[in-house]
Amino acid sequence: MIDPVVLKGFRDSLPKDEIPKKKIIRKLEDVFTSYGFSPIDTPVLEYTEVLLGKGGGETDKQIFRFKDNGGRDVAMRFDLTVPFARFMAAHHSEVGVPFKRYHISKVWRGENPQKGRYREFIQCDFDIVGADNTLSDTEILSMMHASFAALGIERFTFHISHRGLFSLFLAEIGIEDKSIEVLRTVDKLRKIGSDEVKKILTEITGDAGKADAVISFITAGDGKGFLETLETLEGLSGGESDASRRMREIYSILTSLGIEKSFVFDPSITRGLDYYTGIVYETFLDDLPAIGSVCSGGRYNDLASLYMKEKTPGVGSSIGLDRLLAALEELGSPLLSDTAEADIMIVPENGKEGEALSKAAELRKRGLRVSVYLLPEAKMKRIYAAAETAKIPYLMTFSDGTFSIKNLATRESLTGDEAIERLIEERVN
Amino acid sequence: MIDPVVLKGFRDSLPKDEIPKKKIIRKLEDVFTSYGFSPIDTPVLEYTEVLLGKGGGETDKQIFRFKDNGGRDVAMRFDLTVPFARFMAAHHSEVGVPFKRYHISKVWRGENPQKGRYREFIQCDFDIVGADNTLSDTEILSMMHASFAALGIERFTFHISHRGLFSLFLAEIGIEDKSIEVLRTVDKLRKIGSDEVKKILTEITGDAGKADAVISFITAGDGKGFLETLETLEGLSGGESDASRRMREIYSILTSLGIEKSFVFDPSITRGLDYYTGIVYETFLDDLPAIGSVCSGGRYNDLASLYMKEKTPGVGSSIGLDRLLAALEELGSPLLSDTAEADIMIVPENGKEGEALSKAAELRKRGLRVSVYLLPEAKMKRIYAAAETAKIPYLMTFSDGTFSIKNLATRESLTGDEAIERLIEERVN
Repeated sequence: MIDPVVLKGFRDSLPKDEIPKKKIIRKLEDVFTSYGFSPIDTPVLEYTEVLLGKGGGETDKQIFRFKDNGGRDVAMRFDLTVPFARFMAAHHSEVGVPFKRYHISKVWRGENPQKGRYREFIQCDFDIVGADNTLSDTEILSMMHASFAALGIERFTFHISHRGLFSLFLAEIGIEDKSIEVLRTVDKLRKIGSDEVKKILTEITGDAGKADAVISFITAGDGKGFLETLETLEGLSGGESDASRRMREIYSILTSLGIEKSFVFDPSITRGLDYYTGIVYETFLDDLPAIGSVCSGGRYNDLASLYMKEKTPGVGSSIGLDRLLAALEELGSPLLSDTAEADIMIVPENGKEGEALSKAAELRKRGLRVSVYLLPEAKMKRIYAAAETAKIPYLMTFSDGTFSIKNLATRESLTGDEAIERLIEERVN
Repeated sequence: MIDPVVLKGFRDSLPKDEIPKKKIIRKLEDVFTSYGFSPIDTPVLEYTEVLLGKGGGETDKQIFRFKDNGGRDVAMRFDLTVPFARFMAAHHSEVGVPFKRYHISKVWRGENPQKGRYREFIQCDFDIVGADNTLSDTEILSMMHASFAALGIERFTFHISHRGLFSLFLAEIGIEDKSIEVLRTVDKLRKIGSDEVKKILTEITGDAGKADAVISFITAGDGKGFLETLETLEGLSGGESDASRRMREIYSILTSLGIEKSFVFDPSITRGLDYYTGIVYETFLDDLPAIGSVCSGGRYNDLASLYMKEKTPGVGSSIGLDRLLAALEELGSPLLSDTAEADIMIVPENGKEGEALSKAAELRKRGLRVSVYLLPEAKMKRIYAAAETAKIPYLMTFSDGTFSIKNLATRESLTGDEAIERLIEERVN
């Protein structure tokens, strides 16, 4: 016998996990599709050089990398951004720009598994490439808003800032040469608190006054409205600029769409990475702030520089699906609690299987999900247990060719066509 | 610069490929779900020993196998059956039996790429485990019928046989000890023709008469109805048996479901593998016989013997999604030809982006897929080209705040709310 175990950091997905996951993915796909975003897919395995570039670095150690049977140095993708960059370099003329894509798929990282972190997990990325303007920034933000609304989450807030504004401010106080270290430090604000951030900033800049100035900048939005914050930041960054104008225009369109209340100007959002050049954002669930951002991203000015000379500016977001699922579970979302594998279980009468299967076919045509119980000679106790395991709320049994439908929660029994109409009313309409 | 190439035998999926693939997967999922089949997922990477067993063999050479950073011998799954067996051994008490699952996902094989064969491809498997009876055999066949009907394929035929019947026949003519070689040879009938099969069978049995007898058996269904074939085969296999009774019962239920005309009794179907013990079947598209079987499977009496002592009998099928997609394309299926990335493209008026995005939001609420063109200052020629690349049939432009909708095929232009109602009528309802 071989032990039927999975690898450390990997897991099986049972129906109770997979049913809600598929529901959520479908809802997101429906929103993305309604915005004219197109699905793409890329190989799970790629040349290591394509994924890592010629350098390597931190990611290198976390990657599943090996020599294939043909001696090629290959690796499993560790995100969906790098393959998308490679994809755009290969297909930009075929797909045309501006191009809007989404990609929901697994990625792999060999990092040490912790609670809630796995070596195999699902990313959900969406990007607009080939346009650097207010319109595309707003379109991404609007789609994020529509996505969370479609998931039935009522209280969420997008924290948004602009990297250009931050850079102007750093130049203003004369520490633009330290920008990468400052960005990385500020990005840790939520984790380590402002005292610790100030301490590190003082070390970096060698000047407690400058550390204080940075803290004032990143907390300038606290308790203030969007436009008020924007004005304060303009003041701190040398007056009106392309960056501040962009933020004002974005806010104006969000307002005309009636969704501006979900957006706060939060200059502490920097997204650590050097990669971003324009707006940056994170998404928090108002009722679960501790879970951290469930959808993050921003604007970059060149996606595919590793693979082609043409610049591909873009703006994009990534939803960590596993974190989102955990959040929805904690919020008691009905998307997660209804994991019924069918609406009704039909138990055929011995020797009259044809009748039961015909009834099943009829109910399926009406939109019901019908599970036929396949060991009809089993004891009723076992049949009830099976319905319970699969969270199926109704049971249809036959006797002398006539059926009755039992509500397994209330134990109420009904017969006749009216019972079926009631069932369809409840489960389909 | 790094060359943005994919590995040999791998490929990117562009929107024109991915949109129909997702449509087809959704349709299949909807059918499976309506039958109370539940989705599961398993890790892409597993211990090599779990996937290959202690032996190894032919599959061994085709597998993507390596040592991970922790020194574990791991491999990427090469099918969905072995992981399902491991899954059942690990979770049988949690999911309960009978258990009906489907799994649509990628698998990897390092075989030499040929036309239409790739190293990364999608399998679609569905199985019922924990029941060995007529009812579950019929339920699988009925679901296969519903699946092909849901894909809009009108002419398909399930070729079905029973391995038990074949074994009885081999015993009847005294060559049951050669059954594995005979099965494998018969399985090649479609590929190599009956003369070649006869030649090999003569070599195996050392008796041209027995080879002739096998040929008579496997061609006994030619031009005959289901029940007539069944009677002939009963005659050749020593009279009525459990196997022949099962086939008669299955046919009777298929008839009461009104779908029996899609099933032919074809005793040349053996499915090569030793693994099958009951019904076996392949599915052919009447208008594309040369493409081969697009959905195959059968009954086995023990799924998970590698991992646990309890027997897990089952019946299951596998659809090769890439082959099915190729077939649908050749059949001119509308599922494949409509690859529009949106129903309408909206081009905002400069400075009035909010109005255009509000109109987009309104149309999305009505069910339309709306792509906002993100470089509104572009020349109309470029905008038309973008709509054409994305196969979007309508264009909405604004002038002084009023919109007009152009049908890009007919060049007809319409304005006003009536135009929107017509659009919704055509694209949504």
